[in-house]
Amino acid sequence: MNLKIAVLSGDGIGPEVTLQAKKVLQAIAFVHQHEFIFEDALIGAIAIEKTGKPLPEQTLNLCKNTDSILFGAIGDPKYDSDPTSKIRPEQGLLQLRKELGLFANIRPIKAYPKLINSSPVKKEVIEGTDFVVFRELNGGMYFGKKTTNDEGTYASDLCEYNEDEIVKISHLAFKAAQTRRKKVTLVDKANVLETSRLWRKVVTKIAQEYPDVTLECMYVDNASMQIIVNPRQFDILLTDNLFGDILSDEASVISGSIGLMSSASLGEKYSLFEPIHGCYTEAKGKNIANPIASILSVALLLEHFGLDVESKKVIAAVEKAIVNNVITVDLKVDSQFGTNEVGDFISNYI
Amino acid sequence: MNLKIAVLSGDGIGPEVTLQAKKVLQAIAFVHQHEFIFEDALIGAIAIEKTGKPLPEQTLNLCKNTDSILFGAIGDPKYDSDPTSKIRPEQGLLQLRKELGLFANIRPIKAYPKLINSSPVKKEVIEGTDFVVFRELNGGMYFGKKTTNDEGTYASDLCEYNEDEIVKISHLAFKAAQTRRKKVTLVDKANVLETSRLWRKVVTKIAQEYPDVTLECMYVDNASMQIIVNPRQFDILLTDNLFGDILSDEASVISGSIGLMSSASLGEKYSLFEPIHGCYTEAKGKNIANPIASILSVALLLEHFGLDVESKKVIAAVEKAIVNNVITVDLKVDSQFGTNEVGDFISNYI
Ligand SMILES: CC(C)[C@H](C(=O)O)[C@@H](O)C(=O)O
Ligand SMILES: CC(C)[C@H](C(=O)O)[C@@H](O)C(=O)O
Repeated sequence: MNLKIAVLSGDGIGPEVTLQAKKVLQAIAFVHQHEFIFEDALIGAIAIEKTGKPLPEQTLNLCKNTDSILFGAIGDPKYDSDPTSKIRPEQGLLQLRKELGLFANIRPIKAYPKLINSSPVKKEVIEGTDFVVFRELNGGMYFGKKTTNDEGTYASDLCEYNEDEIVKISHLAFKAAQTRRKKVTLVDKANVLETSRLWRKVVTKIAQEYPDVTLECMYVDNASMQIIVNPRQFDILLTDNLFGDILSDEASVISGSIGLMSSASLGEKYSLFEPIHGCYTEAKGKNIANPIASILSVALLLEHFGLDVESKKVIAAVEKAIVNNVITVDLKVDSQFGTNEVGDFISNYI
Repeated sequence: MNLKIAVLSGDGIGPEVTLQAKKVLQAIAFVHQHEFIFEDALIGAIAIEKTGKPLPEQTLNLCKNTDSILFGAIGDPKYDSDPTSKIRPEQGLLQLRKELGLFANIRPIKAYPKLINSSPVKKEVIEGTDFVVFRELNGGMYFGKKTTNDEGTYASDLCEYNEDEIVKISHLAFKAAQTRRKKVTLVDKANVLETSRLWRKVVTKIAQEYPDVTLECMYVDNASMQIIVNPRQFDILLTDNLFGDILSDEASVISGSIGLMSSASLGEKYSLFEPIHGCYTEAKGKNIANPIASILSVALLLEHFGLDVESKKVIAAVEKAIVNNVITVDLKVDSQFGTNEVGDFISNYI
């Protein structure tokens, strides 16, 4: 297979982990005789620095003319301490998600048997956990109108949803449930929010088209508790943009480290794959960042293009690294292995 | 001391747990020669049933003419399955919070040594955890304008904040921190939301008036992870209405059961005390609900009125019940003790 892949490695530890992901893709290409062509482009703080824009036109054009996107991370603490700054790295990612219509963010949550003891949650609680968060990625509070008054004493964010947006991601969620344990849990705040009531109405209607799938509805406050108390109850967790952001980061504690969490962002035409951890600026350039999240995003990318054997091979190689304790310090405090070494081990194993 | 207390026991398990809280207040009154006068009033689903309104005028008037409010729980699943219903139990509580200006919801999070093993999170992670969530309770998405279109295909919720709202709760939070470990963690989503950036700006400014207190800012997605990974880092967690709702329920896992979690809602004139668990309709009337959250809310009430000795006595009695295993099934699967027995033990001990 020929694939042209845009590489947007971004800020902080983004470049170093993405480099390992590329190594892995190159190894797969070599072994399985595919041709993967990589093209780098700027996004985030580094793009602001070099071009003045968090998402330069050139980057957007490249993304529209490639088969897929490998994403690193964005963000820089210097923009956070200045709340008045009108340009910020995150806008690059949000704009990209919107322009490419990447409406579904899919985040698998798994308790890895070999890492079960590195989770802060007890083994008997998380053992066997295996669910997937389907987060709506193009709507909600992220994209609604924002206002401030001139004196800077008032601010607002509008959370909006329309039926179509909910319908699109819901079908994906129910279809995924059909291939799994046949349960969808819709997480909302329908006892308070009008948008949540719309979600509940629309999703309940769609559920009728999938009679083999059970729909459960849960308030977000309860869900944030249930994810820790009884994570095995979830199969597909369907939710809006903001709740999905919060709950998927929370759920990452089950796997033992956010450094293991990959994600796929899908639209009708485009696809983007990224680790869910952020830019983690403190670790930048230290060769301590865990590249596994980025490498597992590669596994999702391969699976997305139907390369199931290759995808499984990447996962197997990651598991081998874990079993052999070739892991970074987030998983093993006294580890001798850095970002590069873990990446090398995994790509060599392939 | 003479106190007139409005008792709004509400729905589900509300009445049965509130009854135990009353018993405890009566025991305290008897031993310490106070006079507590209770007046019951309707709220929530039961109020809708009997008067057509979730917050009848009579209830509101009573609350305005008492010294404090003891609150049970509200909600009824039958309103959730009907997203078109215009009247819902929760409106009663939200309206009450607004009308009485209860702008600060204070939720203590503690790992109780005797219950440390009932938490799903590992002992070594939660041991010594002791922080307090300060949740803004009168603003944000809860109270912003809500819209739907006529076809029912679009919905919106507006999240709004103005400086004054943030200022009020922030001072409470910083003052509380001064009496504790001198740290405030502001939780927001300033990399995406305009309201969060306003929070960050205002709180950063207020922090300068409290040079002995350290301010830390944290994104809500990260906070939802940190609460489980490293809960000891928090002292005062300051946040908005919606994030506070989600994070305080999540944090309840640290104590082992949401059935232990009490809260105070404070305004300039009024105060309300309630367990943070909901109506838990499935348990209604079964004598299995944990009354401790409601009883610990009484401890917060007593403390609020300067009755520190009495407040500590309630806490000591609760601890005695826990040590003696006089606890409900949520804390001990094979427990013989019900709601009533736990309430009796605690009030008799006092
Ligand atoms: C960087 C930020 C804008 C982003 C989000 O909130 O969506 C990130 O937290 C994520 O989850 O991908
Ligand atoms: C019942 C509901 C409206 C309420 C809230 O969301 O504030 C509850 O969850 C709480 O936390 O007190």
